[in-house]
Amino acid sequence: MALSTKPYKGARDFYPEDMRIEKYIFSVWREAVEQFGYEEYDAPILEPTELYLSKGNEEIIREQTYSFQDRGGRDVTMRTEMTPSVSRLVAGRRQELSYPLRWYSIPNCWRYERTQRGRGREFYQLNVDIFGISGSSAEEETITIADRIMQRFGANRDMYVIKLNNRKLSDYILQEYLGLDATEAHSLSTLIDRMHKMDRADFIAQVDAICSPSEREAGAVEKLLGVLDSKTLADLPSELQKQPALKELTQLMAALRAAGVTNIVFDPTLMRGFDYYTGIVFEVNDTDPHNNRSMYGGGRYDSLVAQFGAEPVPTVGFGMGDITMRNFLEAHLLLPKLASETDVYVVPVGDVAETMQKPVAELREMGARVAVGVVGRKLGDQLKAAAKKDLRYALIIGEDELASGQYTLRDLQNGTEEKHSLQRIVSLVQDHRKQP
Amino acid sequence: MALSTKPYKGARDFYPEDMRIEKYIFSVWREAVEQFGYEEYDAPILEPTELYLSKGNEEIIREQTYSFQDRGGRDVTMRTEMTPSVSRLVAGRRQELSYPLRWYSIPNCWRYERTQRGRGREFYQLNVDIFGISGSSAEEETITIADRIMQRFGANRDMYVIKLNNRKLSDYILQEYLGLDATEAHSLSTLIDRMHKMDRADFIAQVDAICSPSEREAGAVEKLLGVLDSKTLADLPSELQKQPALKELTQLMAALRAAGVTNIVFDPTLMRGFDYYTGIVFEVNDTDPHNNRSMYGGGRYDSLVAQFGAEPVPTVGFGMGDITMRNFLEAHLLLPKLASETDVYVVPVGDVAETMQKPVAELREMGARVAVGVVGRKLGDQLKAAAKKDLRYALIIGEDELASGQYTLRDLQNGTEEKHSLQRIVSLVQDHRKQP
Repeated sequence: MALSTKPYKGARDFYPEDMRIEKYIFSVWREAVEQFGYEEYDAPILEPTELYLSKGNEEIIREQTYSFQDRGGRDVTMRTEMTPSVSRLVAGRRQELSYPLRWYSIPNCWRYERTQRGRGREFYQLNVDIFGISGSSAEEETITIADRIMQRFGANRDMYVIKLNNRKLSDYILQEYLGLDATEAHSLSTLIDRMHKMDRADFIAQVDAICSPSEREAGAVEKLLGVLDSKTLADLPSELQKQPALKELTQLMAALRAAGVTNIVFDPTLMRGFDYYTGIVFEVNDTDPHNNRSMYGGGRYDSLVAQFGAEPVPTVGFGMGDITMRNFLEAHLLLPKLASETDVYVVPVGDVAETMQKPVAELREMGARVAVGVVGRKLGDQLKAAAKKDLRYALIIGEDELASGQYTLRDLQNGTEEKHSLQRIVSLVQDHRKQP
Repeated sequence: MALSTKPYKGARDFYPEDMRIEKYIFSVWREAVEQFGYEEYDAPILEPTELYLSKGNEEIIREQTYSFQDRGGRDVTMRTEMTPSVSRLVAGRRQELSYPLRWYSIPNCWRYERTQRGRGREFYQLNVDIFGISGSSAEEETITIADRIMQRFGANRDMYVIKLNNRKLSDYILQEYLGLDATEAHSLSTLIDRMHKMDRADFIAQVDAICSPSEREAGAVEKLLGVLDSKTLADLPSELQKQPALKELTQLMAALRAAGVTNIVFDPTLMRGFDYYTGIVFEVNDTDPHNNRSMYGGGRYDSLVAQFGAEPVPTVGFGMGDITMRNFLEAHLLLPKLASETDVYVVPVGDVAETMQKPVAELREMGARVAVGVVGRKLGDQLKAAAKKDLRYALIIGEDELASGQYTLRDLQNGTEEKHSLQRIVSLVQDHRKQP
């Protein structure tokens, strides 16, 4: 029986036209973060399973890992996210590295999820992390970068909104203001994380079930709803207004607005699924009502490096997936027309198999990217083949052209033909490369 | 207990200085193949296990795959090589694609091997394939590219040699000239593939054991040694001189020499481990006696696309690993000094946390890649931190600089300092980027 031509379910093939989009997204990411002095690193896609067991997102660890034993009996897991790996790398050279350390990576990650739009089983994720700064300049920088990336893709500020919260404020609210114990607080934060996917009555019933009778009597449910319904920091109950965690948010939001990042809001329902966050968390949301979802986010996680027995390193970072990014760009018509990696398709006419080698080599030496058609095939068929490749130019090489040194350059977009020297042709295709 | 900071055994972490080398190798690969009109594609690192079972390298399939069942009971394998995946992609769009199709990719591949120098359990591999050409221009082009890549890395022709053979010639020799049956021929080709790792007496004994008594009586062992000891095509026994497969080799070698690829030799012992080759095979070897090993290779495989129920597509391709490439570049001192992704490290002096934001933003807008130090840290400590990052320039921003608009640019390589406008600074660092 014939083998299937389909990729593994939930994973993607990248034919050249898809690969060009992927390369475009990666190049905008790289340019944006390098402008802020970030250096690229990488780590293996396979990690010891224990790396993911201690802290992270419970649902992913329990139900969504690709875990197995290697042929030597070692438990391994395909990377579900980059944060544990980058913490491992920093811990491994804790002493030698120079801080602040600004690192980025674009790893491929795997999660066994039910496949649906915007969520494959594999995705690439830009990871941007700054290590060694405990003050708020780290949050300011990373959120500014998250915003700059959107701007570089051509997004307007009404297309997305940046939501902010503070894990320390949430912890204070759950444990001190509502008086829950640690287990209840954890269950409740997981529930709040999912609250936008359920109706309000259902949510309230589940909050009710988590709280103990005495907590319910003390008004925990109503107090929680009062907090979650706050639209701004000023809306929060007066008992919370003096909290240092609230002041952190006020100052950060003022600094971001001063730097021009104006589309930011406080969101008390923002929990972020991962257990390792210790301070400010943020999330970027698409404002389009048809695609109104969390696109990416991050926050401060000061205690992961310490898991490796090293001194803790204050860290702020975020991750940004390629699938969500591409969906956003397509929905907002921001994806530009992307040119092929090839500049010119040479169409040989007549028996020029040997004689065309010299001009073709010269074109390449001068910097043109040149594909060559097959000697003996019909001119029309060759031009059709070239047109299917999203190329701009075909170059016809026959005996006349070889004799005169003037070659026929055909513009495949409008069908016009002009005769030029090789040098002129290279300069034309290079101009086109700059402005496709 | 603390988690280990080591990567999974046989896999590599890429700290920024290693990542720069990796990015350099990939960029030379990309430039070289794009010059010949190749387009980039990609496929998932996880494939259905059946993809690898039919044709390939037996040892890898039996002993070296990372195979497991996913949570839905599907048998999956981490990619061991790209050829099965790229054949799957071409078969999936057999009719729509336009030929000749020139595709490349740089996938990460995994094999469970005993770890040793030049062989990790994971590696990146440039894959270059041309589909749709049955004539020898396909072999000519791919071998020329393999050679161009070495030239682009700065290698001289005495540093490497390209070995050629023809699977059709080997098949004819084993089955017709020596008269072996298919099973014996397969065992013998596997043995020849390993002959350079054993001593001659041992090799002869094993050849002897594979041949039947009547084949031995007919002189099969001596005839085989006569073939394998041939240094050139002309050295081969006269009975073989008229074989079409031999003529293919003669013509290809002449064409390559005419194109300037002079360091090519015929090697009758060249088998290549993979079962799918159907014609010309080649291999590039390091000539350094201390590192005298096969670096990479490829050949013609015309029947893989047909495994997916599609019409066959003639194909020639090769693969080139990053670890072998890096070892070669290091051994021959060809690795250039690679600059950091960051141009300038800003050292704030005094309380300039807010006032420095404007000039820093301007530097970035003009195209400089700027990392910022921490306000309040000592000047000396900050310069030390900058120096550790392989950067060229530090930019000191204090109140004087902010008032005058003239900023102190410190060359970290020679310790000199000069005052410049922001515009001049951007132009200086961009010049440095072009010539590090």
